Amino acid sequence: MRPMICALVVAACLVAGSVPFPAHAQTPATPPTGGGPVDRALLEDVATASRILADQGVLDAFGHVSVRHPKNPERFLMSRSLAPALVTADDVLELDFAGNAVDARGRSLFLERFIHAEIYRRRPDVMAIVHSHSPAVIPFGVTTRPMVALYHNAAFLAGGVPIFDIRDKFGATDMLVRNGEIGRALAESLGDKPVVLMRGHGNVATGPSLQIAVFRAVYTEVNARLELQAIGIGGPITALTPEEGIKADMVNEQIVGRAWDLWKQRVGGK
Amino acid sequence: MRPMICALVVAACLVAGSVPFPAHAQTPATPPTGGGPVDRALLEDVATASRILADQGVLDAFGHVSVRHPKNPERFLMSRSLAPALVTADDVLELDFAGNAVDARGRSLFLERFIHAEIYRRRPDVMAIVHSHSPAVIPFGVTTRPMVALYHNAAFLAGGVPIFDIRDKFGATDMLVRNGEIGRALAESLGDKPVVLMRGHGNVATGPSLQIAVFRAVYTEVNARLELQAIGIGGPITALTPEEGIKADMVNEQIVGRAWDLWKQRVGGK
Amino acid sequence: MRPMICALVVAACLVAGSVPFPAHAQTPATPPTGGGPVDRALLEDVATASRILADQGVLDAFGHVSVRHPKNPERFLMSRSLAPALVTADDVLELDFAGNAVDARGRSLFLERFIHAEIYRRRPDVMAIVHSHSPAVIPFGVTTRPMVALYHNAAFLAGGVPIFDIRDKFGATDMLVRNGEIGRALAESLGDKPVVLMRGHGNVATGPSLQIAVFRAVYTEVNARLELQAIGIGGPITALTPEEGIKADMVNEQIVGRAWDLWKQRVGGK
Amino acid sequence: MRPMICALVVAACLVAGSVPFPAHAQTPATPPTGGGPVDRALLEDVATASRILADQGVLDAFGHVSVRHPKNPERFLMSRSLAPALVTADDVLELDFAGNAVDARGRSLFLERFIHAEIYRRRPDVMAIVHSHSPAVIPFGVTTRPMVALYHNAAFLAGGVPIFDIRDKFGATDMLVRNGEIGRALAESLGDKPVVLMRGHGNVATGPSLQIAVFRAVYTEVNARLELQAIGIGGPITALTPEEGIKADMVNEQIVGRAWDLWKQRVGGK
Repeated sequence: MRPMICALVVAACLVAGSVPFPAHAQTPATPPTGGGPVDRALLEDVATASRILADQGVLDAFGHVSVRHPKNPERFLMSRSLAPALVTADDVLELDFAGNAVDARGRSLFLERFIHAEIYRRRPDVMAIVHSHSPAVIPFGVTTRPMVALYHNAAFLAGGVPIFDIRDKFGATDMLVRNGEIGRALAESLGDKPVVLMRGHGNVATGPSLQIAVFRAVYTEVNARLELQAIGIGGPITALTPEEGIKADMVNEQIVGRAWDLWKQRVGGK
Repeated sequence: MRPMICALVVAACLVAGSVPFPAHAQTPATPPTGGGPVDRALLEDVATASRILADQGVLDAFGHVSVRHPKNPERFLMSRSLAPALVTADDVLELDFAGNAVDARGRSLFLERFIHAEIYRRRPDVMAIVHSHSPAVIPFGVTTRPMVALYHNAAFLAGGVPIFDIRDKFGATDMLVRNGEIGRALAESLGDKPVVLMRGHGNVATGPSLQIAVFRAVYTEVNARLELQAIGIGGPITALTPEEGIKADMVNEQIVGRAWDLWKQRVGGK
Repeated sequence: MRPMICALVVAACLVAGSVPFPAHAQTPATPPTGGGPVDRALLEDVATASRILADQGVLDAFGHVSVRHPKNPERFLMSRSLAPALVTADDVLELDFAGNAVDARGRSLFLERFIHAEIYRRRPDVMAIVHSHSPAVIPFGVTTRPMVALYHNAAFLAGGVPIFDIRDKFGATDMLVRNGEIGRALAESLGDKPVVLMRGHGNVATGPSLQIAVFRAVYTEVNARLELQAIGIGGPITALTPEEGIKADMVNEQIVGRAWDLWKQRVGGK
Repeated sequence: MRPMICALVVAACLVAGSVPFPAHAQTPATPPTGGGPVDRALLEDVATASRILADQGVLDAFGHVSVRHPKNPERFLMSRSLAPALVTADDVLELDFAGNAVDARGRSLFLERFIHAEIYRRRPDVMAIVHSHSPAVIPFGVTTRPMVALYHNAAFLAGGVPIFDIRDKFGATDMLVRNGEIGRALAESLGDKPVVLMRGHGNVATGPSLQIAVFRAVYTEVNARLELQAIGIGGPITALTPEEGIKADMVNEQIVGRAWDLWKQRVGGK
């Protein structure tokens, strides 16, 4: 039923001209309660993260980053539907796990906010999430060769990188995580790993902090590029073992600030 | 006969210095009637599209974008012969399907305007066309492995991407679509698809709007790069099925404005 | 004998600090006569060509471009020894086929000016030369797969691309064309072709005008990148035939100004 | 024992927020004696080298460059722990071979300064060192195909490029050269070569001067990219022989200033 209604709505939109995609704004009769006031600095960090990821080539016109609400673990903060390079602190909204905005004020939400909602729901350790179509990673989502950690900055990949194929449970779709049911299937594929690939779509990188999630999104992209090159050289690849991965990733988590500060400077932050 | 005349003309030009290529301006005794006044905003959009495509690496010094006249379906709007990055609204001319300008005022026309004319003639659903030598696509025009849709933003490719080889009908040529006859052969190869590759030359992307044609030109290039990488990884590639392609492309058509707005900002538009 | 002297000189230089490489300035007792006054516009064009080639990624800190003297075919114009991106009209010198400067005024000459001298000597049709280490081309100089023309803008390659291996005649060297004898061997390898690859070194692109030589240097680099990608796709490659190459290259020679004007704008020319 | 303490410290840091990684500052009771005053110009050169390497894509947020003290061969100069693109002359510290700073003044040191200390200790000919994760080189550190010199600017590689695998002596680690013992193992792998790869990590480039070490770091990265492409073309690769390598590298050492001056201009030096 829903696909048919969607098709009619889309057809109507095509006729009528460019209309923002109905964001399942689902403005319920009573909006969800907020998680409490948030430091503006955190909203600025979400915006900075978004612009960093665009500048680093992880996000293009699409994709998004969020952070769990610091006081209420059942809320998260995410930009309104906007190209990542353009996000500012004033664009950041608070949402609940059903994908409803606490205070939308007419702003459109990202269709795929359910990626974030369902991963936060399933993974209490995850404090930030990046969903991207980062280019070098996409080919690894449509092939069968496992992604491995080529070097220490990508150590968080050494424990394995699952692939979520929406077709397994949902047949032929438009590939998008457009509701909680699909989001839960994706979160299940992610399991306890930091990164999951989405066949024919992109990937999700998670972290215990915003800076770490951003770091992981960037270095997943770098690592994919390098793994492709290693495959091209030919022969066996001696990637990081799981144990090396755990140890090296502890260091990553310590030095992530140096990368953040450099990347932030490039996008005009201080 | 024609090749010999061409050679003599070229030789004369080489001697005389740099002379604009005779554009078959064919200023007929009576210029074609115009399709009616056009909003300056549309001319600016054509110029913006041209500059976006150059900025996105789809067009270099060569290539062009056009849009069908909003009031007269047998006319189209296209820049005069100029590097795409330099096009402004004042460079946009109106042409008919024979490739004649309504009001040339001495400006040179693109030699390959017949690509646009003949596709508009054959395909009433097409409202905009991009012809480019976008680099990552060119190798797919000289090899036999089919281009597939690696991910949802390239969903419009999932139905198949034909290749036009000018040699099939015309033997050894200079590879250019320099008249209506070759243009019609190209349009026939395109068939009902959104994109056609041109062996040893480039490609054509079409769309039901200017923004969609530009989006498709950009994501055809991105997709080609990613498909090459997936081939490099080795093994089977699970690309989008035709059904996934249709569904995902409906979404692309809805969100194309977000990409357009971002790309437009980069080239100085508002 | 000479290698030993060279080694001693180099050792002395290493001890003494950074000293400009002795340029075989060979200021003969009587400098060669000049070819006559040259329009400053031509000197500016040589400088512009140099900066274009650096901007287009063909030249890095090394490499050079020259043009034959418009009035005396036994003289040519080339920058003093300087990174190509930094060349201005005042850096352009006049040299003879022995590699001597007409009016050096203490300025260092490029060690490999013999590449230019000997090709001008052998090829009266060549009016401009670019020597570069353009990156995508280098791998084709150390492998055995022929370079072919992937598309029409690289049509000038369709007739074949020879490889010069300095070791054939000269054994183990420092790979440089440091005198007329090596230059003549290189010119012999070039034969009547527009481009020759230099094993373990770089390439030379020639043309009947400065703009065409620059165009060819740029599109040889682009073509190399695309050919590598086509090889990666696998299977047969349907490149331009020699006949298609001749025809398409006539068009290139006509439209070269459009590329030149665009590239010139990027490097601050008008 | 140490890994467990590390894990506890890291866990504490994670709870407490972002804390600079304990740099083994080992402020001994008596700081080491300095090597004597150093020209500010040299400190500026170290900073310039760092910024050049970031600009050239060799260093990203990580990595470092150092130079041996001109008067005391048992001291070296290196930036405090900072992203390479941000280093200025005031950030440059003096260290001894135990990795202690002469005058830290509270500034954090690079964890992996032991790479530099131990190579200076073992190799009296080395006057400058670059440690990077330069991307195209990393795949060669995890595969078995030897790195060769594709062309003359990378001639210094023609004598062979060893790989250091930390696991051989130290089992599963975090991949970092965090003390002198590991540094000595790395220096032993380097042997008498100019460059050593570090499996799952990056590489080290050395030179008899700062400009040469920087040149080598840059051209090792370029060469890696080109070797991958040559492998992709297929068939035998005719790289530089060891004899060609020695001869060509003498020339590199003479013309290194031209590259340095160009690169320095790009990062705002004069």
